[in-house]
Amino acid sequence: MPASVASPALVDVAIVGVGLVGSSVISQLLTVPSLSASLRIVLLQNSKRALLTPQGLSTSTPAAASSWAQNLAASPDAALPPRALVAHLQAHRAQSGKHVVVVDNTSSQLIADAYPAFLGAGLSVVTPNKKAFSASSSLYAAILSALQSGASAKNPIERPLVYQESTVGAGLPIIGTLNDLVGTGDKVKKIEGVLSGTFSYIFNNYSTVKGSSVAFSQVVAVAKEQGYTEPHPGDDLSGSDVARKLTILARLLPDDFDPTTALPEGYASVDTKSLTPAPLAQVTDPAEYVSRLPDFDADFDTLRKQAFERGEVLRYVGVIDVEKKAIKASLESYPFAHPFASALSGSDNIIAFHTSRYANAPLIVQGAGAGADVTAMGVVADLRRVAERRAV
Amino acid sequence: MPASVASPALVDVAIVGVGLVGSSVISQLLTVPSLSASLRIVLLQNSKRALLTPQGLSTSTPAAASSWAQNLAASPDAALPPRALVAHLQAHRAQSGKHVVVVDNTSSQLIADAYPAFLGAGLSVVTPNKKAFSASSSLYAAILSALQSGASAKNPIERPLVYQESTVGAGLPIIGTLNDLVGTGDKVKKIEGVLSGTFSYIFNNYSTVKGSSVAFSQVVAVAKEQGYTEPHPGDDLSGSDVARKLTILARLLPDDFDPTTALPEGYASVDTKSLTPAPLAQVTDPAEYVSRLPDFDADFDTLRKQAFERGEVLRYVGVIDVEKKAIKASLESYPFAHPFASALSGSDNIIAFHTSRYANAPLIVQGAGAGADVTAMGVVADLRRVAERRAV
Repeated sequence: MPASVASPALVDVAIVGVGLVGSSVISQLLTVPSLSASLRIVLLQNSKRALLTPQGLSTSTPAAASSWAQNLAASPDAALPPRALVAHLQAHRAQSGKHVVVVDNTSSQLIADAYPAFLGAGLSVVTPNKKAFSASSSLYAAILSALQSGASAKNPIERPLVYQESTVGAGLPIIGTLNDLVGTGDKVKKIEGVLSGTFSYIFNNYSTVKGSSVAFSQVVAVAKEQGYTEPHPGDDLSGSDVARKLTILARLLPDDFDPTTALPEGYASVDTKSLTPAPLAQVTDPAEYVSRLPDFDADFDTLRKQAFERGEVLRYVGVIDVEKKAIKASLESYPFAHPFASALSGSDNIIAFHTSRYANAPLIVQGAGAGADVTAMGVVADLRRVAERRAV
Repeated sequence: MPASVASPALVDVAIVGVGLVGSSVISQLLTVPSLSASLRIVLLQNSKRALLTPQGLSTSTPAAASSWAQNLAASPDAALPPRALVAHLQAHRAQSGKHVVVVDNTSSQLIADAYPAFLGAGLSVVTPNKKAFSASSSLYAAILSALQSGASAKNPIERPLVYQESTVGAGLPIIGTLNDLVGTGDKVKKIEGVLSGTFSYIFNNYSTVKGSSVAFSQVVAVAKEQGYTEPHPGDDLSGSDVARKLTILARLLPDDFDPTTALPEGYASVDTKSLTPAPLAQVTDPAEYVSRLPDFDADFDTLRKQAFERGEVLRYVGVIDVEKKAIKASLESYPFAHPFASALSGSDNIIAFHTSRYANAPLIVQGAGAGADVTAMGVVADLRRVAERRAV
């Protein structure tokens, strides 16, 4: 049915982190009528200041959609640390009688560590922040436990939910699809994907079906210039972003990877191939890192040539092999006709779910896996789901 | 979060149609513990008999998962026509205090025509049946209207919902993805896809990147033998199945195609290219149809050759061009490197959403778009969503 039919009543939203993604979340909530009718922003904060809008951030004037930034900068209220935020939102809920969702748009481990406290207080969490779900299994167990005990709260507005679609592939339907597969009893056999936009860009240019001779260091340098990498490219080439996403996905397969014990150190427990050459492992200066990378171009070129002679291209992928209980982030090669080789372009993500039901050919989702607007879209779609379930 | 966390309380399910898809729906509901804990089957019926299980179809014995079929066949109760079904389920709800969902696993227009009555009585509808959403705009308007007025029912268990994921691409995340795009304010520019498993199989074999010389009639004959076509292949080659799916998708773009007025005759209003040669249009006997199809092989071969010389392959696709307000089901050609050409195999569906946010490259979903288990999966995933929203 049309997404706008039967718009739910109100749920209140507290937004932590108002950078590129957070700003886009706010913009979508304020400008789409069916969203502003059902979701009310009652708090905004960055790392310094908080803007308290208990009656809802106004949408009555066109200026409201952009004026919040000045108002936040000019606010007399300091940003609330997690414990104070919980107390504030509980008091707000007691007043308003509405369910409250915390949207964490940061990449902060400090905020992630507070999810058990948020959930324990009956606040939902919606987030693109990978940190909480890819850290230690003890944090994950604390999140599950808070969620489980919150589910039996007497008052439905105090029953917390967690939605995290944008933690893998931004707005692409990956987490939701995996939950539907598992939740309807399908048996996942393997999940395999190009899960990093940075690696996608690098290898879509470095290793192509038509053949390519550009130097690896040159592709990395261009990726950095065009903003596809972190400020230090080594943070991407380490593979840790892929390892985090694999951790998140594996923990959604509770029958195969007990989320409270498997991957005890989270992403650090994943078998991860770093593409940073060993001699550069300790180089913290990005400029020095980039300038020394050409010394290793020949090594990468050998791998590329060997793959090409087999009719294959190189791709940095994440693989969860359920039958072998193996989870790894690594550089692999794929035949020219494989969707990872031929159908991928730009910095797109692609993920393939091989299951009992999707046995002949996998279920595949593909598209932009990074960027503020698509990441915000995943967050806002999750907020709609919370509103559908918790509106009063 | 894991799909099984915080399983909701009970919602009651009435299943109409227990063929291949219906049987798989029942099997999934009975055998997945988190589902049987939240969704209770209180009625089953085929076109002849009804099995009333007001306390829930038992899952206490292993036999229950298969014994329902014998019990249904032996039931003293005749199948309930729509009006009697509504009365029965309303009375059941008054007793049980649970929300009730009607699952329509038929392909019956008669049942589809009753959706306004179901919704008007506060019963939700979950279905893979395309008929209601691809028929006249007046039926669709009646569905929307019943849904809208039901949303304000005082008692939440009487507020109806409609979920229809499996009407396009079976269990693939297509309807849900489109609703998320639209619901978060993205602007859809074009939707394009191979939406028929039959056409996918036919053209993946008939027109390939490597070149193919098999006769069109031969591919159709094999497809029929292997069960990829309807009993009369002309029912597939007409393109009406694709036209129905396009109608369903277009109506989810309410700002662009007013569902209550656009496509007044539903799928019959879609510009649809039939691949049945004109002289065979009136041939109702499948054997005669198949035996005369070779007379037209040369025409198809010419199209294939012309495409191949351009470096392209033939694909039967559905296209919704929002900017041109054009909706058509037709035979098109795509360059070898296009995902529709190179990345497609078997009878897979593929769909590409071109939007403002997915501008550089579309959001693509691909995989098996037909089959009882994946169709049932879409139905059951929708039932979970109803349970999450309406459990008491």
